[in-house]
Amino acid sequence: MKEFQLIEQFFKNRGQKRRDVILGIGDDCALVQPAEGKVIAISCDTLVEGVHFFADMPAHALGYKSLAVNLSDLAAMGAEPAWMTLALSLPEVDTQWLADFSNGLFEIADYYSVALVGGDTTRGPRCINLTINGQIPKGKSLKRSGAKVGDWIYVTGTLGDSALGLDMLRGVQAVKPEYKEYLLNRHYYPTPRVLAGQALRGLASSAIDLSDGLVSDLSHILKASNVGATINANAIPLSSSLKNSVTAEQALAYALTGGEDYELLFTVPESQRGAIDTALIHSGVKFVNVGQICSGDKVKFTLDGQPFMPEFKGFEHF
Amino acid sequence: MKEFQLIEQFFKNRGQKRRDVILGIGDDCALVQPAEGKVIAISCDTLVEGVHFFADMPAHALGYKSLAVNLSDLAAMGAEPAWMTLALSLPEVDTQWLADFSNGLFEIADYYSVALVGGDTTRGPRCINLTINGQIPKGKSLKRSGAKVGDWIYVTGTLGDSALGLDMLRGVQAVKPEYKEYLLNRHYYPTPRVLAGQALRGLASSAIDLSDGLVSDLSHILKASNVGATINANAIPLSSSLKNSVTAEQALAYALTGGEDYELLFTVPESQRGAIDTALIHSGVKFVNVGQICSGDKVKFTLDGQPFMPEFKGFEHF
Repeated sequence: MKEFQLIEQFFKNRGQKRRDVILGIGDDCALVQPAEGKVIAISCDTLVEGVHFFADMPAHALGYKSLAVNLSDLAAMGAEPAWMTLALSLPEVDTQWLADFSNGLFEIADYYSVALVGGDTTRGPRCINLTINGQIPKGKSLKRSGAKVGDWIYVTGTLGDSALGLDMLRGVQAVKPEYKEYLLNRHYYPTPRVLAGQALRGLASSAIDLSDGLVSDLSHILKASNVGATINANAIPLSSSLKNSVTAEQALAYALTGGEDYELLFTVPESQRGAIDTALIHSGVKFVNVGQICSGDKVKFTLDGQPFMPEFKGFEHF
Repeated sequence: MKEFQLIEQFFKNRGQKRRDVILGIGDDCALVQPAEGKVIAISCDTLVEGVHFFADMPAHALGYKSLAVNLSDLAAMGAEPAWMTLALSLPEVDTQWLADFSNGLFEIADYYSVALVGGDTTRGPRCINLTINGQIPKGKSLKRSGAKVGDWIYVTGTLGDSALGLDMLRGVQAVKPEYKEYLLNRHYYPTPRVLAGQALRGLASSAIDLSDGLVSDLSHILKASNVGATINANAIPLSSSLKNSVTAEQALAYALTGGEDYELLFTVPESQRGAIDTALIHSGVKFVNVGQICSGDKVKFTLDGQPFMPEFKGFEHF
């Protein structure tokens, strides 16, 4: 037990001092003050060693990514990050590992003003569970269910980089030295599109974050909204690192079915299309139209104007 | 992945439909509407197989207890239970296990009107992480830090039963057949003192739930409040099952240092002492005065009027 008290040193009294945290770590519960007129968004994600990350993943990256993937869920709802709890299960107390992990975690927590308000540390197989709370003005959240026929489909950033980074780590895909750092960073340090998500409130009709790959995540929007979609594969945004590392066909497979990009996919009604540029300019993220919502319940892909069926690259947690 | 979709059957669209849940399981985040004038209490607890429970613990009891221990934290703050997220890591999909686990979870969730609003299921070593949210009128929460010299110390229920139940399961303590069921239930199905906690708002000066044993948990109150305490060991409430199963000395050791009773320990100023009976009568829980807060930073135990040092029975997560 005593050695686990060490852990407190790495997590207690660190990071953001939010004024809405009435009572932080150290009592039976934390107490927080929700803002008037807002609803609370709650999400949780678990990362298990050997399932979601390799045992040799740098602890700093793991700490960063644990929060980044949760922030990405808030982004997809248009929520402002607020408070988090962290449940950490570790096989042993490794102070260097804990220092690195907590530094990575607080780097991104501080950037997005997230306060760590509680948690639990236990001895066990290495596993990180993080629950995050955000706030959204009532009635302004972005849901998966709002896409309508005729709405335009957009994605932020570039797609497929993270999956190629993972394959590079796995040793199943060789990559030129000059692209390695970029691809590794895209896999280890994804950028949650938190500001873009907030900027899309009142403009986008639906949104989701791309955690399992475009094909898979778009299907969630279509199912929740009872619509179909057409996707122009030529419009999918690809990084030069991806394009220069693999064949055009492989690049498209990574971009359409590779996971963990943590970019946003969102739909916008024709009437709001002109407002998107202005809304997103301050978020600093690129975005591009890749298709349109149609009737039905399927996705039709086209490549160079011809029907096209993406090869399933495969990204499975299990 | 597909088999894990089975899991949704056991958790989605089940349990309480709270009116303050705007969006439940199925989007990137859940959305909940906090009540006006209240603050939110947040707590999380992890149960790891082989650390917090044996591999053969009945799944129904495990589901029940996973929530019970979190509700106990809300009780200790005087909070009203509201929403929870569940992260479940399982080595394989066992539908009977999942049915039993979810039945146990929803049995207590429904009783206390807790809505499951999100979660995550992953393949991995068996591990349950539950994060709970409750609500408390602003300024009315019970903290560990409010005990003052002269306040009376109370505990609810009886102490030590759960630890004896655990030792019985471990096979290190024989118990007469007629006491087995009671002791097992006290270990597997602890009763969080949720209503008692709420009733103590405005009356108790501090509170904590007894998860690690009275000696250990009382020390948290003393440290947070900068006070000491005297405890009359003769006043410690013991069940007849405990008293009739072990020697008087052992019984006291279980009661003072055994863990997982999930009863409340609270302090009450002299001025509020008369109001406690009325306040707690509707919660249906017995409570008894076991000592008094004094100056200093230590606990002095007396037994039959003589100084007494409790034998450390030992309850360690690690």
